[in-house]
Amino acid sequence: MRLALGISYNGQAYDGWQSQPSGRTVQDHLEQALAAFAAVPISTVCAGRTDAGVHGLMQVVHLDTEVKREEFSWVRGTNSFLPPDIAVQWARHVPDTFHARNSARARRYAYVLLESPVRPSVEAGRVGWVFRPLDGDAMREAARHLVGEHDFTSFRASSCQSPTPVKTLAPIAISRRGAYWRFDFQANAFLHHMIRNLMGCLIAVGQGLHPPGWMREVLEARSRDAAAPTFSPDGLYFLGPVYEAPWGLPDRVAAYDGLP
Amino acid sequence: MRLALGISYNGQAYDGWQSQPSGRTVQDHLEQALAAFAAVPISTVCAGRTDAGVHGLMQVVHLDTEVKREEFSWVRGTNSFLPPDIAVQWARHVPDTFHARNSARARRYAYVLLESPVRPSVEAGRVGWVFRPLDGDAMREAARHLVGEHDFTSFRASSCQSPTPVKTLAPIAISRRGAYWRFDFQANAFLHHMIRNLMGCLIAVGQGLHPPGWMREVLEARSRDAAAPTFSPDGLYFLGPVYEAPWGLPDRVAAYDGLP
Repeated sequence: MRLALGISYNGQAYDGWQSQPSGRTVQDHLEQALAAFAAVPISTVCAGRTDAGVHGLMQVVHLDTEVKREEFSWVRGTNSFLPPDIAVQWARHVPDTFHARNSARARRYAYVLLESPVRPSVEAGRVGWVFRPLDGDAMREAARHLVGEHDFTSFRASSCQSPTPVKTLAPIAISRRGAYWRFDFQANAFLHHMIRNLMGCLIAVGQGLHPPGWMREVLEARSRDAAAPTFSPDGLYFLGPVYEAPWGLPDRVAAYDGLP
Repeated sequence: MRLALGISYNGQAYDGWQSQPSGRTVQDHLEQALAAFAAVPISTVCAGRTDAGVHGLMQVVHLDTEVKREEFSWVRGTNSFLPPDIAVQWARHVPDTFHARNSARARRYAYVLLESPVRPSVEAGRVGWVFRPLDGDAMREAARHLVGEHDFTSFRASSCQSPTPVKTLAPIAISRRGAYWRFDFQANAFLHHMIRNLMGCLIAVGQGLHPPGWMREVLEARSRDAAAPTFSPDGLYFLGPVYEAPWGLPDRVAAYDGLP
């Protein structure tokens, strides 16, 4: 019997999503909590791994189990064994043909960036930070060069395990409210460090270090050396995967997610 | 020479504002950082003490010192000695007649509350939580009974050191966006635990445990026993004191503060 779960977490305290010998990852804590609730070992497959320090608003996993419980019992029972900064939001019984990673048609991420002469404090670990003012129009122009199907090798970490560097990126929404910038990304899939590398380049353009057209040069170089350094994980949120409606899973992202 | 500083902090890791033998308070860390920067002991007076777990968006302190530095040096220098979740936002030289507490004409607080069947996770420690739906109109009607000058003894902690329980409360703004409720409070001053006690009562009304008119009964009882239990500190933010314009201090609260 296959079950899908929606998971939210603050990534600050964890060594990323994927299980590690350290045991200090979100997946480790989730699987320990599931095992404690179900009284049998349970392993999970996620929609998208997140790096150390990256947060998840609606990660989705699937698992197979013979244990029969009501959906709400999986939520409440598992949560009672999870630390305060990780929580199961929902559980749904799904057909065996559902696969958290392979069934996802797209992934959505947001990056929240504080523009301030002073570093973050109240929101330390939960926003990226720039102290120089950013030019939103320049960043939007640069971002347009990225839209569509491209070889994103220039924005790919050497550790990336994706079978292909070719991904299809939707238009990047860049908005600002007060001192907070927000960048919304959607693609069929992302390479390892892709958004943090894109953010490094967008910020370089926003600060006037490069003209907007430089983004196309970086993209076409197909070389990691062409791009700006990988930006901080602090402001990165996995909003969640996008599945087709017939799977009947809850809306992957709330209309208002509480982020700036 | 007197100096005023604006301070932001995430209160989760601290035993409140006021200096304690433990040394784990925001004031302790601030005064240690100021002393490290100025190379002499420095003591501070704040606009409003906050409890353990309560956050500050723009606390204001004043201090007296013979050390002469540029205002921006006080900010950068002190911040280099502060932990990541506390930061000085600005420094201003002020006349000796300015007093962070006594010159404040009012204080502003916000309470952020998550209404969800599942406890907070991404925002653990930074929002209060209710799992039963709240009736906003009932809470707004209850809140109207509190507006104006009243004896707020029913909402006062036994530890309160205020010389009088009589305070003047401005209308409480109650808004909702998605799963997040926000309550905005302003008064000339607040009693110890007053907002957390008001929140406990507003939530009791919002959940239908009492009718809105019960709030007047609680107020008029002038007895802590009449009110609901003190609510969690997690969602409480000191937005900052309000000073008269001639002091020339920066706007105490940004137009957009980043909270839900």
